Amino acid sequence: MARVRPHIGEGKVADYIPELGRVDPARFGFAVAAADGSVHTVGDTGVRFSMQSITKVFTLALVTQAGETHIWDRVHREPSGSAFNSLYQLEFENGVPRNPFINPGAIVVTDELLANTGDAFAALRGLLRAETGNPDLDADGVTARSELETGDRNRSLAYLMAGFGNMRNPVPEVLDHYFRQCSITISTEELARAGLLLARHGVRADGSRMIDRNAARRIMAIMLTCGTYDAAGEFAYRVGLPCKSGVGGGILAIVPGRYSVAAWGPGLDAKGNSVTGALALDTFTQVTNCSVF
Amino acid sequence: MARVRPHIGEGKVADYIPELGRVDPARFGFAVAAADGSVHTVGDTGVRFSMQSITKVFTLALVTQAGETHIWDRVHREPSGSAFNSLYQLEFENGVPRNPFINPGAIVVTDELLANTGDAFAALRGLLRAETGNPDLDADGVTARSELETGDRNRSLAYLMAGFGNMRNPVPEVLDHYFRQCSITISTEELARAGLLLARHGVRADGSRMIDRNAARRIMAIMLTCGTYDAAGEFAYRVGLPCKSGVGGGILAIVPGRYSVAAWGPGLDAKGNSVTGALALDTFTQVTNCSVF
Amino acid sequence: MARVRPHIGEGKVADYIPELGRVDPARFGFAVAAADGSVHTVGDTGVRFSMQSITKVFTLALVTQAGETHIWDRVHREPSGSAFNSLYQLEFENGVPRNPFINPGAIVVTDELLANTGDAFAALRGLLRAETGNPDLDADGVTARSELETGDRNRSLAYLMAGFGNMRNPVPEVLDHYFRQCSITISTEELARAGLLLARHGVRADGSRMIDRNAARRIMAIMLTCGTYDAAGEFAYRVGLPCKSGVGGGILAIVPGRYSVAAWGPGLDAKGNSVTGALALDTFTQVTNCSVF
Amino acid sequence: MARVRPHIGEGKVADYIPELGRVDPARFGFAVAAADGSVHTVGDTGVRFSMQSITKVFTLALVTQAGETHIWDRVHREPSGSAFNSLYQLEFENGVPRNPFINPGAIVVTDELLANTGDAFAALRGLLRAETGNPDLDADGVTARSELETGDRNRSLAYLMAGFGNMRNPVPEVLDHYFRQCSITISTEELARAGLLLARHGVRADGSRMIDRNAARRIMAIMLTCGTYDAAGEFAYRVGLPCKSGVGGGILAIVPGRYSVAAWGPGLDAKGNSVTGALALDTFTQVTNCSVF
Repeated sequence: MARVRPHIGEGKVADYIPELGRVDPARFGFAVAAADGSVHTVGDTGVRFSMQSITKVFTLALVTQAGETHIWDRVHREPSGSAFNSLYQLEFENGVPRNPFINPGAIVVTDELLANTGDAFAALRGLLRAETGNPDLDADGVTARSELETGDRNRSLAYLMAGFGNMRNPVPEVLDHYFRQCSITISTEELARAGLLLARHGVRADGSRMIDRNAARRIMAIMLTCGTYDAAGEFAYRVGLPCKSGVGGGILAIVPGRYSVAAWGPGLDAKGNSVTGALALDTFTQVTNCSVF
Repeated sequence: MARVRPHIGEGKVADYIPELGRVDPARFGFAVAAADGSVHTVGDTGVRFSMQSITKVFTLALVTQAGETHIWDRVHREPSGSAFNSLYQLEFENGVPRNPFINPGAIVVTDELLANTGDAFAALRGLLRAETGNPDLDADGVTARSELETGDRNRSLAYLMAGFGNMRNPVPEVLDHYFRQCSITISTEELARAGLLLARHGVRADGSRMIDRNAARRIMAIMLTCGTYDAAGEFAYRVGLPCKSGVGGGILAIVPGRYSVAAWGPGLDAKGNSVTGALALDTFTQVTNCSVF
Repeated sequence: MARVRPHIGEGKVADYIPELGRVDPARFGFAVAAADGSVHTVGDTGVRFSMQSITKVFTLALVTQAGETHIWDRVHREPSGSAFNSLYQLEFENGVPRNPFINPGAIVVTDELLANTGDAFAALRGLLRAETGNPDLDADGVTARSELETGDRNRSLAYLMAGFGNMRNPVPEVLDHYFRQCSITISTEELARAGLLLARHGVRADGSRMIDRNAARRIMAIMLTCGTYDAAGEFAYRVGLPCKSGVGGGILAIVPGRYSVAAWGPGLDAKGNSVTGALALDTFTQVTNCSVF
Repeated sequence: MARVRPHIGEGKVADYIPELGRVDPARFGFAVAAADGSVHTVGDTGVRFSMQSITKVFTLALVTQAGETHIWDRVHREPSGSAFNSLYQLEFENGVPRNPFINPGAIVVTDELLANTGDAFAALRGLLRAETGNPDLDADGVTARSELETGDRNRSLAYLMAGFGNMRNPVPEVLDHYFRQCSITISTEELARAGLLLARHGVRADGSRMIDRNAARRIMAIMLTCGTYDAAGEFAYRVGLPCKSGVGGGILAIVPGRYSVAAWGPGLDAKGNSVTGALALDTFTQVTNCSVF
């Protein structure tokens, strides 16, 4: 991690809600979980941070388990080519979001999960508790309330989809679950463990199969093409792995069949991805030569 | 009205809410009020219909009275070049609507009126009762509730503006006033009387000045350039008068300094303007030679 | 003109081609031609300047003479709501420009005129020579060549329309005529005289009718809604007359049935309209009370 | 290939130029070249077809050889989210195309190659002759001329970029090279051989290194995220390999470090990708389990 150290503290910590802005920018964690369950860690891998958009990987897994494909009638799988919370593409494409990792797409996934389970937040929390082995994993209530208060744009996206008939539950209820999901806190080490679900192509920590191999591949393909906001092309080249980032500074990367890698550094670049996290993953794939390309 | 008669019943009655769809498409009314207060009527000019977007003229007058210009920091005055409820222009222009006659612009005007008066709906109803001389003029509660139930797209627009900091009151409260305003019912004759406020360049029925001459001109200029959805250019040519239409089938036209003209026919053309209303106004300006051009 | 004098020299002279940038910014001219042919002038009304977009009024008249309406299959009549040389609206609307006063619309008009006459430039020059009474009126060759050299965006617009099948002649030929038309030089007094064609609702200086009364009204309606780039709404209010401006600093305004008014000042505001020209017209309509509203 | 056979003849052969439309839709070829140079073929792998957009992979390699990175100032590397020949994103992003595989991006690459070499077409043909081992490989003159005649939209794109200062050579010259490049004909077997340049991470058929390992990875990352028009997300999932398709019906796919795979079937799906080619690649990765995910 000698290459990463000089860059610790770079970037801008997300501060659109106060709780995110309070994180120490000098923190950095890096954890690699192997398919056999062994984990290697460097740095602040026990400190919990806000998962934010990284949760979208796991809610997507939850709505595609048991061979479910209904969700693909409600959200496309193509890169968006525009900002993660943009409305205009949604408008031109009749309320069907471009992919499940931009905000409107993730809201549709939460809506679907809510309709399927009756409690989308509990479903996600249950999955993450099981996969991380942390029975206390939970949302941060202060962050969730702050998101609710500042969530006008997400409300606008959700009502636009409702206007197109693409919401199954009332918008306020869906957004309540959505914001609580985003505010789940997790440590770097826990995130690496949770990601093994994908590295093992759909097999859970307890050895049971949750989603079939093809569904896991589909999620990883979407991570690679759409997982890092408007920098997916750049990440595909630099890191060469399926990744999902969050504005809490975390990034989850998968080496299919082998590793789940989690990196965390709160400072974000102009596109919303962790500066040190991206650098650490870049270094990791160069050293280990495990780019998919 | 011989030229209009063969076209009565043409067009499609708005039916996005059930109440609007229940109107008899064969109705037609035409009323001309002169600046001296005399009124001439033809047809069903005593039947009340839903004002819908025509209310936007009067709420705009209410927020520009007493020399107020603050509203022009929150909404532009330019034609939109896109559908009346489109989001993308609003997004690219940072939550400031193109003009006060598209939906987001009118929502901003209602928000401003609500902030100024504490009761936007009552302010509008009061003005219209005084100008029409009808003390019972009111909203249709069923229509208002239906609008509320189908108003997801307007909610989306309002929350998008809130996300840009361009709302002074809570969105649900503003929309409640907005939908009640739109559902005010008025007769063709009453509408012609109310429009004299503009024909007299800002002077009310009781002879008092409500808005100054320049503010009245500004409103008429916006009517001519933006008053008939995406057909403003066509209306400017065919009718040659400042007009404002509504999906209830009404159209208000002003001959500056001389007449206020109201036409009503529930059947709408593809752009949302009354088929018989537009035809009647077209004929009126040709016969009287009172186009502004 | 006391109100205008302090503002002379304000604004930015167009300089995208060197010839336009060489004009003395302190020049100012104002001329009013009455329907009876009498002309009143103030300032530098004998100095010639580049007509630029003001020519679009006269080419439009040329393709609508003799009751021709074919042009309206190739160009709409609605305000554009976007920059005068924007491509995206043209792309979404299948190569049919929004109106004849934005660049792609004007290129279509020139193409039509070229197809009709065999020499679009000569047709325009002939009309303007006759209406101004100046047999030497002509294009400025240096300006025309400069426009050709810097005209990549207009080429892009023209080829996009060609790709949609909306060009009748080869693009290079149409643009040659188009650029020569734009570079015609005219004095403020001459422009006021030429505008009488519209003020008289289609009657030429020699008393013959060129276009019918309705075609003249249509052109004036388009001037009012689309004649001053993205400031049409603002002009409609401030000046209250059909206007057409050009980046050479000229503005032509019409008081239907009464006057043709020309103003010229090279300094442009941020939307491309003459600062002093707009101010002079604003003052003119306030003093004479001849706004159409 | 039993799974592919029933679908032979499906889809629509590209026919925007007559030459492309003359191809027998029942043709199908599939070839796998291993990194050691051995090639396995099925079907019509000796029949030549029009490379079209597949050439973009090789022109991109040519402008990034010898560590050149200048091209990345002129074109981005992100998925586009809109049609391959769309103008509006190009306009909003100031003439810098989203990636080198949409038309404007490829035109910029050809322009760069022309500026670097003096003959972009010859440079590409030389590379392909060497890598395929076919000294007669060449453009089809009839197709190239047809492309020139129907290329108005590409002209529009090129002039738009020229207007933004993003062209180094005259537009007509660049397009002449671009259209000739696109019309190069190649057989399925030859295409598989040529693709080994990427499968070997930048090493040519003669064993010399042309581009460094990272540049080859970057090209493959762009293929995976942007190589199959607006279906890149779908291909990433179904095929799970970096691919580049062309409207001639060819698709090139790379298994990094191991294989170059070429498939050809003239019938295209709604997004412009070969129906049988996509199916064959899908089957190939499922059978061989060589998806990168």
